[in-house]
Amino acid sequence: MFHGVVPPLCTPLTEDGEVDTRSLERLTAFQLDAGVHGLFVGGSTGETAQLTDGDRDIALRTVIATAAGQVPVLAGAIDTGTRRVLEHARRARALGAAAVVVTAPFYVNVGAAEVRAHYELLHAAVDLPLVAYDIPSNVGYKLPPDLVTDLARRGVIVAIKDSSGDLAGFQRVLDGAAAGGLDCLTGSETLADLAMARGADGIVPGLGNVDPHGYVRLYEAARAGDFTTALAEQRRLTALFAIVDIADRSRVGRISAALGAFKAALVARGVIAHPRTQSPLLPLTEEETRAVADRLTAAGLGRIG
Amino acid sequence: MFHGVVPPLCTPLTEDGEVDTRSLERLTAFQLDAGVHGLFVGGSTGETAQLTDGDRDIALRTVIATAAGQVPVLAGAIDTGTRRVLEHARRARALGAAAVVVTAPFYVNVGAAEVRAHYELLHAAVDLPLVAYDIPSNVGYKLPPDLVTDLARRGVIVAIKDSSGDLAGFQRVLDGAAAGGLDCLTGSETLADLAMARGADGIVPGLGNVDPHGYVRLYEAARAGDFTTALAEQRRLTALFAIVDIADRSRVGRISAALGAFKAALVARGVIAHPRTQSPLLPLTEEETRAVADRLTAAGLGRIG
Amino acid sequence: MFHGVVPPLCTPLTEDGEVDTRSLERLTAFQLDAGVHGLFVGGSTGETAQLTDGDRDIALRTVIATAAGQVPVLAGAIDTGTRRVLEHARRARALGAAAVVVTAPFYVNVGAAEVRAHYELLHAAVDLPLVAYDIPSNVGYKLPPDLVTDLARRGVIVAIKDSSGDLAGFQRVLDGAAAGGLDCLTGSETLADLAMARGADGIVPGLGNVDPHGYVRLYEAARAGDFTTALAEQRRLTALFAIVDIADRSRVGRISAALGAFKAALVARGVIAHPRTQSPLLPLTEEETRAVADRLTAAGLGRIG
Amino acid sequence: MFHGVVPPLCTPLTEDGEVDTRSLERLTAFQLDAGVHGLFVGGSTGETAQLTDGDRDIALRTVIATAAGQVPVLAGAIDTGTRRVLEHARRARALGAAAVVVTAPFYVNVGAAEVRAHYELLHAAVDLPLVAYDIPSNVGYKLPPDLVTDLARRGVIVAIKDSSGDLAGFQRVLDGAAAGGLDCLTGSETLADLAMARGADGIVPGLGNVDPHGYVRLYEAARAGDFTTALAEQRRLTALFAIVDIADRSRVGRISAALGAFKAALVARGVIAHPRTQSPLLPLTEEETRAVADRLTAAGLGRIG
Repeated sequence: MFHGVVPPLCTPLTEDGEVDTRSLERLTAFQLDAGVHGLFVGGSTGETAQLTDGDRDIALRTVIATAAGQVPVLAGAIDTGTRRVLEHARRARALGAAAVVVTAPFYVNVGAAEVRAHYELLHAAVDLPLVAYDIPSNVGYKLPPDLVTDLARRGVIVAIKDSSGDLAGFQRVLDGAAAGGLDCLTGSETLADLAMARGADGIVPGLGNVDPHGYVRLYEAARAGDFTTALAEQRRLTALFAIVDIADRSRVGRISAALGAFKAALVARGVIAHPRTQSPLLPLTEEETRAVADRLTAAGLGRIG
Repeated sequence: MFHGVVPPLCTPLTEDGEVDTRSLERLTAFQLDAGVHGLFVGGSTGETAQLTDGDRDIALRTVIATAAGQVPVLAGAIDTGTRRVLEHARRARALGAAAVVVTAPFYVNVGAAEVRAHYELLHAAVDLPLVAYDIPSNVGYKLPPDLVTDLARRGVIVAIKDSSGDLAGFQRVLDGAAAGGLDCLTGSETLADLAMARGADGIVPGLGNVDPHGYVRLYEAARAGDFTTALAEQRRLTALFAIVDIADRSRVGRISAALGAFKAALVARGVIAHPRTQSPLLPLTEEETRAVADRLTAAGLGRIG
Repeated sequence: MFHGVVPPLCTPLTEDGEVDTRSLERLTAFQLDAGVHGLFVGGSTGETAQLTDGDRDIALRTVIATAAGQVPVLAGAIDTGTRRVLEHARRARALGAAAVVVTAPFYVNVGAAEVRAHYELLHAAVDLPLVAYDIPSNVGYKLPPDLVTDLARRGVIVAIKDSSGDLAGFQRVLDGAAAGGLDCLTGSETLADLAMARGADGIVPGLGNVDPHGYVRLYEAARAGDFTTALAEQRRLTALFAIVDIADRSRVGRISAALGAFKAALVARGVIAHPRTQSPLLPLTEEETRAVADRLTAAGLGRIG
Repeated sequence: MFHGVVPPLCTPLTEDGEVDTRSLERLTAFQLDAGVHGLFVGGSTGETAQLTDGDRDIALRTVIATAAGQVPVLAGAIDTGTRRVLEHARRARALGAAAVVVTAPFYVNVGAAEVRAHYELLHAAVDLPLVAYDIPSNVGYKLPPDLVTDLARRGVIVAIKDSSGDLAGFQRVLDGAAAGGLDCLTGSETLADLAMARGADGIVPGLGNVDPHGYVRLYEAARAGDFTTALAEQRRLTALFAIVDIADRSRVGRISAALGAFKAALVARGVIAHPRTQSPLLPLTEEETRAVADRLTAAGLGRIG
């Protein structure tokens, strides 16, 4: 059902922090031109945690309208508790999303029973496929592989996006997924070819915003069993991914460093108009921005159009 | 400005998970009768992370109406990013809250610069006093004492609620607070007398839902410099606080265990109608509920009215 | 059995990293002159983790000889596994230590059953009183209060040194200690008066190396029930404790920052000859050393003798 | 220099906890017969943290004597501080080890400067090649890829054993290793084929104690570029690795679960005489031991010889 390259779209903003729908349309078109297989709106890379519900909806509506049915659009329903997620999921359904992507509850300390209840309640209440989103660095909880495969077997979830960085754990999900018909997507920018080699169905790379063509080439090569080509592409993308390490980390946190770099790169490539990130995230400095541009040049990525 | 016992109110729910406003009115009246000095709606104990915006507003409106100006009502504006918090803060202001209580951003990994920006932007945009809420167990970030006192000195925040469990760190805030006029409230149920001895202005105890009279006695004794009486009261309350350890932790997480116990106790005391917690949190089992009732009896707490 | 101020002695080193026994004798005498009630050799503050077994023995032998029976000398037996600890404990006994101080196992991930077995095996094999050392920041495991009080009740341990920073947890140990006859010592430099107020029997403050007179005054005041005087002394000591925050933490870790400051202060006070710390720990820079000296002056602490 | 399958040998014990040299000789011979390319004595799997120095030496001497120069024997020098590691390294050299394997310092909180100093001091003082051992789960510190490759470039370390579970970080080491001539060994049991595909030189699998033939087949296939065969072997080994999840984790910690399972399997295969683990580690129960035997049967592994 879900496969291929499904970039978690950035949310371009105007200088005063509103959703820049023109830039988002261009970003969406850029991705479609590159041949991506789906689009994920409202993920961590989309600064969803920083967006109001209104802005989340504007972003989702814009992408769905631009995609015009060419590829499925998955919508993040990222929030702390079941009822809050449910509201997001219902709005996403009304706007035409193909699925909703849901993390474990956060802010509260939960155990496996509560996480299970969370997904089961949502499955019962939302008339859309459910994608589990494993991102322990953000929610402080790692989805246990056994829970994931059990939810799949019982039809509660149809896919998983694994952003845990724990490839051995993802392997356990992949091994258990065959029975349940679970689509397995990796969120790793730098281990995508390996995840594909191990049976992943697709890739959800934040860096795909900047270089979707690269990830599409990587995916197609891996799909065709040509892991040598996939690895060569992966190496180029891994080198490019170093842009997330440019920001001075004594100044900003990990997320500002990564999203600031993606947006700086998208501005440099002429895809979006402004590098602004949503508060409290901070953009790169001018000097850091120039370093991003240098890396793009080294990776052979110029301005589009 | 803020001082005394300011319980973080539970949000009573009906059996089907709606805000039980009748029970919430009774809980509010119970607290006011006990002589509390303020009320905090929309905190972690209020299951805010599990409530929709609509339910958050119903709870706040109910408490403000019941309190009828007798004590200030503080409103939590708990959310992941600045603009989301801002929306909560504006609604809280419109509903008549006396202040908004705001944590560090969460779900995203941030550094001190982003946390500072978060509070400064909110201060500039919200026409209500700002209370910083230090709760690293939930947000994964400890507010640095230097940042807290600096924000106070510059008038960005007027108070802090310390739920870090780090009394040495709180001491550093207390020591730095004198200059800035910062009101310092401890969120500790079991070290409240010590925090008062060290200069805290008040107490925000989740257990205060169950036994507000105890915390008011503790506070008044400490205020009067009678730390022997305060300690005796603290010992009784510490023994009672063991209700949060009754739930089987191989079944549920820490928050279900605590909030489930508070609600079971409030039902046993005749204050609220139902023990239900909001999804995905799970209530106590029947056996666990009986154990809570036994502890209430041991603590000399019967049914009200 | 164990009570009062029991400083965890620094281990002075020569410029080339050998144990400077002359300086250690002076440090021991300085502590005894100040009226401390015991001495703890081979703790974290003694850089035990950095010392060879030979150097650990030299330090212990030196202090026991200098103390000459005036106060009990406790010996750390800090190591990863039971048999390694056992060897340290036997040497400590042979050298005349009054008790051995033992953490939970580390380097390996253990549960409560293994920790319990660790202490029980040591109790059975070592003919010296056993002191449990709760220091989760170093060993990655917090001793559960219930386990501590159970080990006390069954005579396995006679005392606990709590360096967890979790005063609420320490309170649970104190509450459970009465029955078992457990001596409860706090390792906190800045909450010592509060720990005493709550029933602690003594204090094991790293900062006591630098200002033993201050901690003795604090202890005596608290023992006499004069918590006003204890608090005043605590405030002065807390201000002095800020020397551990002088080192540039982008250069060195937390332990180098603290131990480097203690040694710089001991050199400034004329107690020890060299500020060197044991590899891989790094000493303060010259500028940082001057800042330490300024703080000593502000705290009214001059050169001895 | 170092490559191929280098199992981190278990240390068989007698019923009363002494090193069972006969069993260790059999285990060593079993590994050599399987065609392993090196042997690692004194690693985490060897329960080094639980062994006295005397027992560490007995184990190393036994393996070196049995190997008789057929393959290089690497010796762990696992300890908290530089001088303690240095003593282990010197004994290892005297006993004939080919290299020493060294983690970051632990028990103390360190930063990159101290870790760098640690390795540099050891390199200057030990006349044996140095292998860095990245095992953050045990030491609480992740070796930064940049530090590793810099140490390699400057000749301080000749190899790395990566047991971090962070394959993306290991990739950064592999990418940086080419210049420095660093041998890169993965400690992963379940991602070994992928690590090989990405350029690793060898595998240090704890599970290799139980099934060395499997890892040798995997390695040889991967070396020959036959990743299909490597993957098939990896899948079988990954299924077998589930023996580390058999122990009841509410009873014992992660390490007892893993090492207990390896030893139970080695007893079942007739390689070693007793399943005892060193205190405080606890062995499997009888029922758990039977479950291990069932898994061996399922994996096609019978008694040797």
